[in-house]
Amino acid sequence: MDANNVIKTILSRRSQRSFESEQIKDDELFWIVEAGRSAPSGGNNQNCHFIVIQKEEMLEKLKETVRDEFALMSADESTYSSLRQSIERSKTGAYDFSYNAPTLIVIANKKSYPNAMADSCVAIENMIIAATSLGIGSCYINQLHWLSENEKVRSVLYGMSLKEDEIVCCSLALGYPLDAPVAKAPLHGNLVTYNK
Amino acid sequence: MDANNVIKTILSRRSQRSFESEQIKDDELFWIVEAGRSAPSGGNNQNCHFIVIQKEEMLEKLKETVRDEFALMSADESTYSSLRQSIERSKTGAYDFSYNAPTLIVIANKKSYPNAMADSCVAIENMIIAATSLGIGSCYINQLHWLSENEKVRSVLYGMSLKEDEIVCCSLALGYPLDAPVAKAPLHGNLVTYNK
Repeated sequence: MDANNVIKTILSRRSQRSFESEQIKDDELFWIVEAGRSAPSGGNNQNCHFIVIQKEEMLEKLKETVRDEFALMSADESTYSSLRQSIERSKTGAYDFSYNAPTLIVIANKKSYPNAMADSCVAIENMIIAATSLGIGSCYINQLHWLSENEKVRSVLYGMSLKEDEIVCCSLALGYPLDAPVAKAPLHGNLVTYNK
Repeated sequence: MDANNVIKTILSRRSQRSFESEQIKDDELFWIVEAGRSAPSGGNNQNCHFIVIQKEEMLEKLKETVRDEFALMSADESTYSSLRQSIERSKTGAYDFSYNAPTLIVIANKKSYPNAMADSCVAIENMIIAATSLGIGSCYINQLHWLSENEKVRSVLYGMSLKEDEIVCCSLALGYPLDAPVAKAPLHGNLVTYNK
């Protein structure tokens, strides 16, 4: 059996890290967000909060704050490598955590809700697959999650509708791809064991 | 713009809680697992371990152990409601956490890896969407995650290839749907805020 069109789309997904400046269309954004909203949630709680940021000055303010806050942090060999990279690059003063994408969607969830991370991550993957199906590039962004308790970053996000009882679980950079991503390398991990 | 076929599939997904006893086909299972393996991972670490369980005696042993361990736990009003339900139902002696599904896929990941939960959850959602596209019902299962530090449950899972340095992040019940799921209700949550 060959893969069907949906599975082919899932297999073709690549993380995109360079974007056209042209904004994605409103109806593309609508379907991507609806895909996220349609993901399952623990006990059908539907606690995700999708914060779409397209306003340029908001994106700039957020990027600047993230860079400034990372630059104040320190990292050593025990720091998770991706976080360490963000800190080191921020100290150079030239760090853009969202790859200059014209759209950023922050997925927040209730602080007190035990399934917050799981629900937000299944929702983001729905958005990633929907974007792929529309020819829109996307990249899972962890930086705002790492800074989800940072008061300076929170204060900027409050201005974009984050609520005090919410944490940022993940976020998604979206835009038309500037360069074709490199060809998908064979998977080196993600082991499978069959008990048949 | 109408939703394309991929987005329609994402929007049509429903959690399925009753399954035919007939096993899903090997090539359907293959594509579902490949979809999971193709999800993004933090720093492209690919640390997921997909443990497929189809052997009936293994499924029975796991269900029995889960029921016995939940039955020993106590719950009150402060307990997360879905976990409380699992505990209360297990005490009655008649609890099947995986809805009698013929296939269960456990997604484990490295204990020490900060992105374990996120990576496993984006992978499970790829599998859920792939299953939906094939007409296969699925349900996100949290119970093994709640018991991921339980030594009795771990010991059963070791016999199915879980490694000592791994935790269970989530799992997925899969099978042909026995009853059509109830029609999708309008979403009551999953708020969206636009900053355009």
